[in-house]
Amino acid sequence: MKVFIEPIGRLINEFAKLPGVGAKTAQRFAYKIINMSEAEAQNFADAILGAKKKVRYCRICGNFSEEEVCDICKTRPNEIICVVKEPKDVVAIEKLNEFGGVYHVLHGAISPLDGVGPDDINIKGLLKRIGEGGVKEVIMATDTDVEGEATAMYISGLIKPLGIKVTRLARGLPIGTDLEYADEVSLARAFVERKTI
Amino acid sequence: MKVFIEPIGRLINEFAKLPGVGAKTAQRFAYKIINMSEAEAQNFADAILGAKKKVRYCRICGNFSEEEVCDICKTRPNEIICVVKEPKDVVAIEKLNEFGGVYHVLHGAISPLDGVGPDDINIKGLLKRIGEGGVKEVIMATDTDVEGEATAMYISGLIKPLGIKVTRLARGLPIGTDLEYADEVSLARAFVERKTI
Repeated sequence: MKVFIEPIGRLINEFAKLPGVGAKTAQRFAYKIINMSEAEAQNFADAILGAKKKVRYCRICGNFSEEEVCDICKTRPNEIICVVKEPKDVVAIEKLNEFGGVYHVLHGAISPLDGVGPDDINIKGLLKRIGEGGVKEVIMATDTDVEGEATAMYISGLIKPLGIKVTRLARGLPIGTDLEYADEVSLARAFVERKTI
Repeated sequence: MKVFIEPIGRLINEFAKLPGVGAKTAQRFAYKIINMSEAEAQNFADAILGAKKKVRYCRICGNFSEEEVCDICKTRPNEIICVVKEPKDVVAIEKLNEFGGVYHVLHGAISPLDGVGPDDINIKGLLKRIGEGGVKEVIMATDTDVEGEATAMYISGLIKPLGIKVTRLARGLPIGTDLEYADEVSLARAFVERKTI
């Protein structure tokens, strides 16, 4: 005797494909769907298909976009390009409402151990944009892990010779930290990069 | 400037309707969908619609079913009826592979504080099944919380006068417990219901 009837078992399997979702959680999600109205379930299914069909990558910056060129690339000056690893990093920075420039999404980070080299991420697109002129500064906003640092160093090595300012997001103690509990690497970094006040 | 483009924002909103899913998790789920192939996303959407459209309640026991009468009611003897609160309780018991009787799903528990009375859960259906004859035992497998206990007591009060055996799942110490860490209520219960060995 199967424990779940086929349509429920199938839906549980689909939900279990989502990141961090195990069998129990997938089951709870499936029951939630079954308890929805038909219209709500239809909306849910439409949202999945809509996101898959309507979302593509901006031809210029590589971020998610509904059109060939995204709204950010269309409307903002391209003097400052902020280079990030993933589209979700753009979201994190946009939420700050601090940065008014454009982005460049690499879709990965250089990681020899995982077999990801410079040609496997969107560096060529960045060099092309810089070659078209008008760019004054490139902010490397890749992660602060080993791969992110390596990627930032590699790209800055390519761009600096072109006479363009390359910056890196400041690293140091997170705001609101008890010094005692700060991780050693960040604390050491904060010493090295200490500033006159 | 919106942080998410419309199709992504919409999908995040849908995922955030699932139980225990906050904004960050919904965002991760949405990215997972966008990174799926079209066929995978279509399968996901179909599973949602399929579950919603194909799943209904068994006319006899109230459990999820693809047909008017579920496979369990169709194929098993109805001498022993196990009464549970929700369809997911049937799943939990079926996984044991111990019980060979049929179920009755109440779809709720009596809870005066929440305005749920005996007429709001499927007790009538249970009495009707018993009235049709052949039932020898009713196992009350409702939760062991206040509502579950009240429901079990109420239903057993209705059924016992009909001369049918009514049992309740044993309560006491969970297997593998350190006595020291057992909750007081279960420990007290285990004393009261101690058995000769």
